[in-house]
Amino acid sequence: MAREEVTLLGMWASPLALRIEWALKCKGIWYKCIDEDLLNKSQRLLTHNPIHKKIPVLLHGGKSIPESLVILEYIDETWKQNPLLPEDPYERAMARFWAKFVDEKCWTTIPGVFGNERGDEQEKSKEKAIEELRILEKQLEGKKFFGGESVGFLDIVCGWIAYWLPFIEDITGLKLVDETSFPALSAWFKAYLSVPWVKELLPPPDKLRAHLITFRQKLLSSRLLNI
Amino acid sequence: MAREEVTLLGMWASPLALRIEWALKCKGIWYKCIDEDLLNKSQRLLTHNPIHKKIPVLLHGGKSIPESLVILEYIDETWKQNPLLPEDPYERAMARFWAKFVDEKCWTTIPGVFGNERGDEQEKSKEKAIEELRILEKQLEGKKFFGGESVGFLDIVCGWIAYWLPFIEDITGLKLVDETSFPALSAWFKAYLSVPWVKELLPPPDKLRAHLITFRQKLLSSRLLNI
Repeated sequence: MAREEVTLLGMWASPLALRIEWALKCKGIWYKCIDEDLLNKSQRLLTHNPIHKKIPVLLHGGKSIPESLVILEYIDETWKQNPLLPEDPYERAMARFWAKFVDEKCWTTIPGVFGNERGDEQEKSKEKAIEELRILEKQLEGKKFFGGESVGFLDIVCGWIAYWLPFIEDITGLKLVDETSFPALSAWFKAYLSVPWVKELLPPPDKLRAHLITFRQKLLSSRLLNI
Repeated sequence: MAREEVTLLGMWASPLALRIEWALKCKGIWYKCIDEDLLNKSQRLLTHNPIHKKIPVLLHGGKSIPESLVILEYIDETWKQNPLLPEDPYERAMARFWAKFVDEKCWTTIPGVFGNERGDEQEKSKEKAIEELRILEKQLEGKKFFGGESVGFLDIVCGWIAYWLPFIEDITGLKLVDETSFPALSAWFKAYLSVPWVKELLPPPDKLRAHLITFRQKLLSSRLLNI
C-alpha cells in the first residue's frame, strides 16, 4: 500500500504544532514535518494559510487545513483508529468546550506570565493563569487523564501546559503549579509526559530552554521599544 | 412518543442564542426558550454555565452545554436529520475554520463599529470589518449559501450578520456592505433571510431596533464614564 502524503507545516518549539504531531503519532500516521521560519515566513506557509499566515497547517490529499483544533478534528475524522474524541455527543461537547477554554484563556494568560517582566501585567496574568489552572484541576479530579483512563482529545490540547509550564516557571522564577495545591494536575503532567508517543516527540529540554530564553529576551526588548 | 425536554437559556435579541434556535428549528426539534436577563443574571444561568456565565446554554437530558459553536456541533451529532455539517472531513474542517474566523474576527470588529462613536476606534473597526467581510464575500462566490445549494453550519454561524448588519449600519450611519462591492454577500443576506425557518425566528425589526439603540446608548455612556 502506498504511503499517504501527510505533511505538517510546523516548528519544532511550537506547542500548537506539537498537538498535531501527537495526534498523528497516536493514530500511527506517517508524516513529514517542515520546520517553518516564523521570523521570515515562507511563500509555502503564506500559500497554505493565507488568512492567518500561522503554523500549524496540515497538508493532506492536496488540501491545506490550518488551525490546531480544526486539524485535530480533521485527523480524528479522517483516520478512525484510536479515536481522540469520545463517542457520546455530550462528552464530545465537553471536550470541545474545555479545548476552547484552554485556547481562549490559558493560551493568553500563561504566555502573559512568560512575556512580561515583574510588574502589574505579569502579576495579573499569573493570578488569572492560576485561577484557570484551578478550574482544570477540578476537571481532572478522580481521573488519570482528561480523557478518563486513556489519553484523548483534551489531553493533546492541554499537553503543552505539562511540558512548557515548568520551563516558564523556571525562566520567570514564578511558581504557578505545585503538587500540594494542584495534586491532580501535577499527577496528570507526569502521566501524560510518560505516554511513549508523547515523550518521544518532546523537544529536547536544553534546546527548548535556550530557545525560550532567547525568545523571551526578544519579546521583552520589542515591548520596551514600543513604550 | 414523549417529547424530549430541550431548553435553551437565551435572550430574544442575542445573535448567538438565535444560532441555536435556527439549528433546532432546522432539525425540527421542539424546544422551550427561557429569556435570561443579562443585566441581572439568574441563579439558573450561573448554575448551568458557571465558567463563562453567558448565554446561550442548551439543557438536554439533564446536561448543560454552553458556547454556541459547541452547542451547534452537539445538536448536529444528537439529531442526525438535516445535517448541518457536510459529510466530507475536509469540508467539515473548512466549515469549522470559517466559523472560528467569524467568531474571532467579525464578532469583534462589527460590534466595534456599533459600540463606538465616530473616531479612530470606530474607523479602525470599520476598516477591519470590511476587510473580513471581503474575505467572506470571496468564500461565497459562485455559491448560493456557504453550505452550497442549501443552508448549512456556516450559514447558521454567519446568519446574525445578514440580519443585524443593516440595523448597525442604519443606527451608526456607516455603510459597510453594498450590492456593488459585495454582490455575493448581499445576495446571500437575502437568500438566507428568506429561508422559512430562518425568517420565522427573526426578532421583530422595530423591537430589535429600539433595543439596539438603547443598548448602544448604555455602551457609549458606560465607556464615557470609564474615561
